[in-house]
Amino acid sequence: MAIVLGPNQYGKAEVRVVAVDRSTPRHSLVDLNVSSALRGDFAAAHTAGDNAHVLTTDAQKNTVFAFARDGIGSCEEFGIRLADHFTSSYPWVSGARVAIESYGWDRITVGGQPHDHAFRRPGGEVRTAVVTVDGDDVHVIAGLTDLVVLKSTGSEFWGFPRDRYTTLPETTDRVLATAVTARWRYTGTDVDWNGSYDAVRTTLLETFAGTHSLALQQTLYAMGEKALEQHGDVAEIRFSMPNKHHFLQDLSAYGLDNALDAPGAVVYHADDRPYGLIEGTVLRDDVPAAPAAWLGTPGFC
Amino acid sequence: MAIVLGPNQYGKAEVRVVAVDRSTPRHSLVDLNVSSALRGDFAAAHTAGDNAHVLTTDAQKNTVFAFARDGIGSCEEFGIRLADHFTSSYPWVSGARVAIESYGWDRITVGGQPHDHAFRRPGGEVRTAVVTVDGDDVHVIAGLTDLVVLKSTGSEFWGFPRDRYTTLPETTDRVLATAVTARWRYTGTDVDWNGSYDAVRTTLLETFAGTHSLALQQTLYAMGEKALEQHGDVAEIRFSMPNKHHFLQDLSAYGLDNALDAPGAVVYHADDRPYGLIEGTVLRDDVPAAPAAWLGTPGFC
Amino acid sequence: MAIVLGPNQYGKAEVRVVAVDRSTPRHSLVDLNVSSALRGDFAAAHTAGDNAHVLTTDAQKNTVFAFARDGIGSCEEFGIRLADHFTSSYPWVSGARVAIESYGWDRITVGGQPHDHAFRRPGGEVRTAVVTVDGDDVHVIAGLTDLVVLKSTGSEFWGFPRDRYTTLPETTDRVLATAVTARWRYTGTDVDWNGSYDAVRTTLLETFAGTHSLALQQTLYAMGEKALEQHGDVAEIRFSMPNKHHFLQDLSAYGLDNALDAPGAVVYHADDRPYGLIEGTVLRDDVPAAPAAWLGTPGFC
Amino acid sequence: MAIVLGPNQYGKAEVRVVAVDRSTPRHSLVDLNVSSALRGDFAAAHTAGDNAHVLTTDAQKNTVFAFARDGIGSCEEFGIRLADHFTSSYPWVSGARVAIESYGWDRITVGGQPHDHAFRRPGGEVRTAVVTVDGDDVHVIAGLTDLVVLKSTGSEFWGFPRDRYTTLPETTDRVLATAVTARWRYTGTDVDWNGSYDAVRTTLLETFAGTHSLALQQTLYAMGEKALEQHGDVAEIRFSMPNKHHFLQDLSAYGLDNALDAPGAVVYHADDRPYGLIEGTVLRDDVPAAPAAWLGTPGFC
Repeated sequence: MAIVLGPNQYGKAEVRVVAVDRSTPRHSLVDLNVSSALRGDFAAAHTAGDNAHVLTTDAQKNTVFAFARDGIGSCEEFGIRLADHFTSSYPWVSGARVAIESYGWDRITVGGQPHDHAFRRPGGEVRTAVVTVDGDDVHVIAGLTDLVVLKSTGSEFWGFPRDRYTTLPETTDRVLATAVTARWRYTGTDVDWNGSYDAVRTTLLETFAGTHSLALQQTLYAMGEKALEQHGDVAEIRFSMPNKHHFLQDLSAYGLDNALDAPGAVVYHADDRPYGLIEGTVLRDDVPAAPAAWLGTPGFC
Repeated sequence: MAIVLGPNQYGKAEVRVVAVDRSTPRHSLVDLNVSSALRGDFAAAHTAGDNAHVLTTDAQKNTVFAFARDGIGSCEEFGIRLADHFTSSYPWVSGARVAIESYGWDRITVGGQPHDHAFRRPGGEVRTAVVTVDGDDVHVIAGLTDLVVLKSTGSEFWGFPRDRYTTLPETTDRVLATAVTARWRYTGTDVDWNGSYDAVRTTLLETFAGTHSLALQQTLYAMGEKALEQHGDVAEIRFSMPNKHHFLQDLSAYGLDNALDAPGAVVYHADDRPYGLIEGTVLRDDVPAAPAAWLGTPGFC
Repeated sequence: MAIVLGPNQYGKAEVRVVAVDRSTPRHSLVDLNVSSALRGDFAAAHTAGDNAHVLTTDAQKNTVFAFARDGIGSCEEFGIRLADHFTSSYPWVSGARVAIESYGWDRITVGGQPHDHAFRRPGGEVRTAVVTVDGDDVHVIAGLTDLVVLKSTGSEFWGFPRDRYTTLPETTDRVLATAVTARWRYTGTDVDWNGSYDAVRTTLLETFAGTHSLALQQTLYAMGEKALEQHGDVAEIRFSMPNKHHFLQDLSAYGLDNALDAPGAVVYHADDRPYGLIEGTVLRDDVPAAPAAWLGTPGFC
Repeated sequence: MAIVLGPNQYGKAEVRVVAVDRSTPRHSLVDLNVSSALRGDFAAAHTAGDNAHVLTTDAQKNTVFAFARDGIGSCEEFGIRLADHFTSSYPWVSGARVAIESYGWDRITVGGQPHDHAFRRPGGEVRTAVVTVDGDDVHVIAGLTDLVVLKSTGSEFWGFPRDRYTTLPETTDRVLATAVTARWRYTGTDVDWNGSYDAVRTTLLETFAGTHSLALQQTLYAMGEKALEQHGDVAEIRFSMPNKHHFLQDLSAYGLDNALDAPGAVVYHADDRPYGLIEGTVLRDDVPAAPAAWLGTPGFC
């Protein structure tokens, strides 16, 4: 028996780079949070403190800023450029993972016109991209996180098994709310990244809204199925969807009803914890799995 | 000398109430985080553990849910209803403060049409309201927090004094970014709360965008001045505005320029900490101050 | 009527300075988060963008680092040095507020011996200090935040009034838990800051533990009273104490009791929101109030 | 080609259960955050909204509370009990994962004596456990997260390759600080869980302190190697260790040195972002890998 080094990676996390295109008076900007990680032969650093192979994380950070000088383009493109650079520059670097969060900015409207150089960050969901170069393979996973959505009706939950600890009543009309994290893997890299992102996001939103839900699992699957049906270059999509519980408040102790069909507002309590957590993958059965694409990305599967 | 009880208050914080109007198939919803606090004669609870005056915080929470059953309306209205109730129900309660955060929801668009009962929470700024009833007085402070805005040009900073520790270069073209917290106090309660909120918010955004800035202080003051000029029922407005630094990245070590007028993108590092913090009040000099209105609300002044 | 500038301040927030004393092989370290703010005549910056009075926040940050070079001492001393410097250096700066968070580090024990230069950050409460120089006055407020404490018995809550919305049952044995934020103002500056901090902290902990509680208000008052009794140089102490609810879980639906005197463990649910929030001041009635000392510090009163 | 359901799981996340042992006047308490997830045949819920197999997440929560009534013991034991229950109760549930965070509480000392029923939560690292039942296999991963440690000397970093983007100077004396997340997998379940946890934690701390570090990778590996050497029932250990940068502050612009051997304090800036992130596994080469044990646990490898 021996004690040995297993899988490892290292890099610079959360480089906050903002690139402004000032080539015309109408500026535009890209706002990213970039994390890079290198994989390869780094054994000597671990076992002997020999750093001859350790491209510093400081240099990785500098590379992010330097590459941004040429313009960023989509976050997927930028990730590919960076990961290609890291893996092609040194023989002992066999893989790289570049994970990016992208924050959107809207133009501020002044007097009915979008302003040339003043912006508001709308908040809401964050766009994500994970690019992995693994030897000769390039994997791209696009995604979004914290897309908070809610249906005030059109959601049921019944027919579940009842054991000793099951006390939940069945319901044919509940609030359904979640904060969608979705990540979808492309089959290749010849993709209109921004256009595809917008289109998949629209599919997810429209399917969430349009699906009469019997279970959050069903909504999740419908969202994934539609995304794959409508977007032929998506191989698989993975979801993590907390069930953000909205409990109908019992007001009977004060002589008030709180029935769904009573006049007036229906009152719910939005609870924080605990929450249900539904996770699942929807995929094409004829596309090879790509575990290397997902290595190091949080989430089930 | 004696040791005595000084100012005190107590209440229930962060009641997360969601009210859905289901009276037509086109639902609407109000999503609030409500905190109440009572002031008055609570000395015996402190000095003797005698709770005869202590309306429980649990009852305060229940009241929030019960009152929501009749519909919430604007958050300012809801706060007034609650504060009035607490102060009029028991002789020893002389004051109440109800602080509310309001989270907006947009309808999801499906096939070009806004959906009847599916919503997306856009994130971004949070609307706030603080209602204080103090004896016979009712004070209303509307506001917003975390309105993140940025100008990619139109901001200078120079002419400051230089001491031993001043090393900052002057600049005539910098990125200016902040997360606005603003709170404005109304002179009365006969206000179209939602309409006024939207109008003040628009004024703040347009003034931020339209002001050529020589200092963040100047931008702050311009925003306040315009808000008071355009909204006659606003007595004063207070701001807390972090200067979210975007530093021009020095790329010269890699043989790259990063000049504002060079072709390509200009690259900035968005820094987290430390940050400048600019706080100030703009007010009408003929309206009496109202310290009771601000009691317990974080922020300078 | 005119629109005018009201109270204002500006500065650099959250400068993270760590000072290591390496004068002997047994190192020691001080780890602070420092925020400075200046008050005075800054009107021209607001109204005209004239920065001639605006000592940059960058210079304020540099001053923090430069002053740390001489050693920091206690955070109160360091705050006084900084605030004195800012107010004495420029005639138009009439006041300064320096707020500090201090993070403790323990030595790591190796083979039973405390290590010379390896440390663990224990977490838990954060020590705070707020120094305000206001003209010729120097005010010092020491404190702590997020001191999380719990009693598993020795807490009752009954005798409260019952209105339509009161449904809470009375109890003579509940879990009492809170996260104490306390801030105490000294009558002067001739204080053993570190010794006094430790002593007040001990008083607060021992009084929380030793008080049989009929209300969280009573516990709060007892903590403040004891602090003033035992520490003659403390003029007043302010508390903000959330009631971190631990609800006895009802297990009867599964045929289980959950009685306090039943064999086995008693099971509680630790709830997040909403929470009670109890705030109050305990003070000496013969010491003048010092509103300037508290300006800009969050919290009621 | 068909679109199909891939891997999936669901459960209740973050059940905050506190169990108090009141069987003697000297109480003790266990404070956990429990998340359960079930795996198995849940296809119908996804594809048809048929919930016949969906043991509700509400029931999972209730089970956590009910099981706590019998006492919790160590978090690993509690996780095993729960996971065994879920997988043995329904034929279609083939796997369960129970992830637990455990928060420590110390007794408050009053008059030199530890109090019977008053506690302080010390903060600092959180103990973690992940139990996975996968068919007949039971996997237990113990761990901790956010163990923040620092060495003020005894850390070097040099000998790294230099490319166009490498500007970092070499150093033979730097501050080394990190927040350790470690997870170690046991070879079996016949373990003194609490004793083993304490022992591994001590090994990690002592090795961090005692290793003269040439790279954070080297420290990581040394910590893992020692843990495996000293704890024969640990099969592998995985680390995620951010390099929490402490930059020596350049004070030369103000005429001050900041040399490591100069009199006075050495001044560092504790930076937030970006940060290095070092991740790696140390394992025994004769123990079979157990990918099922790690499924759904964030982190590389």
